[in-house]
Amino acid sequence: MKIVLDGMGGDHGPQVTVLGAVNAVKEYDVNVIITGDKERIEKELSKYDYPKDKIEIIHCDEEITNEDKPVQAIRRKKNSSMVVGINLVKEKKADAVISAGNTGALLAGGLLLLGRIEGIDRPALAPVYPTLKGISVLIDGGANADSKPRNFLEFGIMGSIYATKVLKINKPKVCIANIGIEETKGNDVSKEAYQLFKTAPFNFTGNVEARDIPAGHADVIVCDGFTGNVILKLTEGVAGAILSSLKVEFTRTFFTKIGALILKPGLVNFKKTFDYTEYGGAPFLGVNGALIKAHGSSDAKAIKNAIRQAKLFVENGVLEDILREIKVLGEDNVD
Amino acid sequence: MKIVLDGMGGDHGPQVTVLGAVNAVKEYDVNVIITGDKERIEKELSKYDYPKDKIEIIHCDEEITNEDKPVQAIRRKKNSSMVVGINLVKEKKADAVISAGNTGALLAGGLLLLGRIEGIDRPALAPVYPTLKGISVLIDGGANADSKPRNFLEFGIMGSIYATKVLKINKPKVCIANIGIEETKGNDVSKEAYQLFKTAPFNFTGNVEARDIPAGHADVIVCDGFTGNVILKLTEGVAGAILSSLKVEFTRTFFTKIGALILKPGLVNFKKTFDYTEYGGAPFLGVNGALIKAHGSSDAKAIKNAIRQAKLFVENGVLEDILREIKVLGEDNVD
Repeated sequence: MKIVLDGMGGDHGPQVTVLGAVNAVKEYDVNVIITGDKERIEKELSKYDYPKDKIEIIHCDEEITNEDKPVQAIRRKKNSSMVVGINLVKEKKADAVISAGNTGALLAGGLLLLGRIEGIDRPALAPVYPTLKGISVLIDGGANADSKPRNFLEFGIMGSIYATKVLKINKPKVCIANIGIEETKGNDVSKEAYQLFKTAPFNFTGNVEARDIPAGHADVIVCDGFTGNVILKLTEGVAGAILSSLKVEFTRTFFTKIGALILKPGLVNFKKTFDYTEYGGAPFLGVNGALIKAHGSSDAKAIKNAIRQAKLFVENGVLEDILREIKVLGEDNVD
Repeated sequence: MKIVLDGMGGDHGPQVTVLGAVNAVKEYDVNVIITGDKERIEKELSKYDYPKDKIEIIHCDEEITNEDKPVQAIRRKKNSSMVVGINLVKEKKADAVISAGNTGALLAGGLLLLGRIEGIDRPALAPVYPTLKGISVLIDGGANADSKPRNFLEFGIMGSIYATKVLKINKPKVCIANIGIEETKGNDVSKEAYQLFKTAPFNFTGNVEARDIPAGHADVIVCDGFTGNVILKLTEGVAGAILSSLKVEFTRTFFTKIGALILKPGLVNFKKTFDYTEYGGAPFLGVNGALIKAHGSSDAKAIKNAIRQAKLFVENGVLEDILREIKVLGEDNVD
């Protein structure tokens, strides 16, 4: 299996992507193609010991930055590490592509270069959401700000397949993120989606209130990309605010510092529970190819895990399953 | 000044509402009318020492419960403590009404009995959101699941007046809760609202990303009621999940228990920062009268603070300010 990694993507570039790739090829049965500045990538590679035949470099003399406008960047920077990477998947020269670069550009690249799976109206981002019970998947994490009930149905199907095949959750509970558990609660879109979900080909267990998301009530959280983005970023913001105010309390006096020292291993454990780097990145589900967005601030571990995730994605036939389910759904609608 | 308190509202009923009223009349220059079961209220009152002339009871033999359907409850239970309370404000026999009861019923009561302020399309709930910097106000906290850009404008105006007059925030920064700070980001409603806000009669400082809300980047957070409800409940859920997983770590061994004991005062301080009971309740802004929704799980302190809040609301002429600003806005639109 060949996985392409955008070597230039992310806050740290080749320094982090290359180490992630090196660790991945040592640990998993995969080959990695790194796209980007050959000289810089080779320099990083030279620091490590690894099976040389499992990493290949494809030189690209352009780079898409976070300041680039998504669609323009994809159209104009044809020799960028990101565009070259996506095109390798398009041309079936690789099985999956991963990038920690400009999110908007990567989504635009997925839509423009790979295209949508037949029958899918809106591809969606499906990041993992760590909970007290383990992990859930949130879909849409921010690819579409406005969505229709039919899109929610697609999100539910794709999220459920991904949760089953890649996250290995058995019969994932699919819920609509909503402001009440009753089917009459919510905005127009969520109420209509509820009705569609009643006969959907997945384990729909009703609405989930935002309050119950961190506790892990839902395995697949379905919402529009606006709400999804708010959920992801607010979780980050609340956790950050709590930790920073705890820090103030814990460093207030000599005694509290000792208390904090005793609790340090516990705090480390706690941080691990909510550590996104464990889970790789967010697949862009619904495009015609395996495309994974890694977090911009990914470290080498996150990149390695994204490669593992891409491998699971491909070998478990996530794309084929989505294609099949959407086709069945289309046929049902004809009846 | 006379403030009506729904004596039967909330999870604890008269036990809590009465003590809240007693403490309020001792501390502030207000008279309180408690509506509800006279016998139960008198029994509670008999436990305390307070200026007798400052608390009055109006007996009601009905009660709206959380199971009641909002509109039906308001229409049918005409002698409930909630309906009688709202009607006292309508008939100008009291200046404000507070209830910790059924939220939907209270909102329906506000709309059906008090009516909307002329020029306001959608009244909205404006709860306080505690942040690292102090407090913000969120509007709409859940009264309307779907909103139009024009509603956002009303929310901004009302939220800004409330933040200035009651929360005493000088020139409050009004922001649209959004998925990016650029004006081109967001869903259709938030993008159109951004354009309206450019000439709005308040201190609009752009979009706020959900990540930055807990840090206190915005004093007035404007969003539709769906998003607002998600923000409030997710904040509660994330904080709860973090505290419960910290608790697990802190009670893991004898030593961590000692560590936690040392840190206890700090943890108490920390909880205080995010304690909603400090701030009373959420006004239902845009209805023709001062109506405040206290949290269902309010304790006596929360009720007392809601009474203080109602007093500030009335004496600072929040309603009159809203009426004036909305009128000016209407005239501007005619030009």
